[in-house]
Amino acid sequence: MSTPSSTRWLSSGQQKVWRAWLDAVARIDSHLDEVLRPFGLDLGEYEILVRLSEAPERRMRMSDLADAARQSRSRLTHTVARMEKKGLLNRVPCANDRRGVIAILTDEGFGLLETAAPAHVDSVREVLVDVVNPADFEALGRAMNAVNQVAD
Amino acid sequence: MSTPSSTRWLSSGQQKVWRAWLDAVARIDSHLDEVLRPFGLDLGEYEILVRLSEAPERRMRMSDLADAARQSRSRLTHTVARMEKKGLLNRVPCANDRRGVIAILTDEGFGLLETAAPAHVDSVREVLVDVVNPADFEALGRAMNAVNQVAD
Repeated sequence: MSTPSSTRWLSSGQQKVWRAWLDAVARIDSHLDEVLRPFGLDLGEYEILVRLSEAPERRMRMSDLADAARQSRSRLTHTVARMEKKGLLNRVPCANDRRGVIAILTDEGFGLLETAAPAHVDSVREVLVDVVNPADFEALGRAMNAVNQVAD
Repeated sequence: MSTPSSTRWLSSGQQKVWRAWLDAVARIDSHLDEVLRPFGLDLGEYEILVRLSEAPERRMRMSDLADAARQSRSRLTHTVARMEKKGLLNRVPCANDRRGVIAILTDEGFGLLETAAPAHVDSVREVLVDVVNPADFEALGRAMNAVNQVAD
């Protein structure tokens, strides 16, 4: 942690980009959630459906699912319990690890993903992909890759 | 909502940028929260301290504060109640609107913001500003502005 005297404060231009980032993240999240709400889903639940649908046999260990869906273990446990009640997935013990739990997408969960996907993709286009010019969108991809390469 | 047959699915390149976006948002949020935790703050609380510190007389109507801090009214009410318990702000009735409530930053709240700000700025640099090349960072700003101009 720096002392105030050595702090490299953001320039006014950097500050503007940073605040625009915070606004855009909030706006995108809120638009996506709003579009998913009629399907009884939020963005976290949608991501879980996507990840399970892409996994072999549509099943994943909870620990891998937490990483893939960018959720803490405790948040994922909570979300998955809610989704299990709605019949979207099942949890079963892991055969070769007594402490492990596997989440399995149900046909109902897969069906809901198929139903919600077109509206979800439209919402991603409306609020990001189609509104940013193609060169800036490519730069956005490079910028996000740079962020994702920062060591934890 | 589109029917599946008319859905304009994302191209593979667009899909990559979109997933990199989701990963980067999660990574930035988590890094910022981690750096604020030793100060007893999360990013939502920090934003509230910033907004109040910049307001005339360090006070804002709750409804304006919710907009400025990009929080729903119900989330803000919850967060502000928590911050009031910690002595970071006070809530008083609005003089000319019986239903309105004003949040006022305390000296203690302002002091905590001053203490936490250098570490916070460093964390924004570490995970975004200093890791993205300057041209891509400018493009990021344009991209975020485009997102923020989408009508609600």
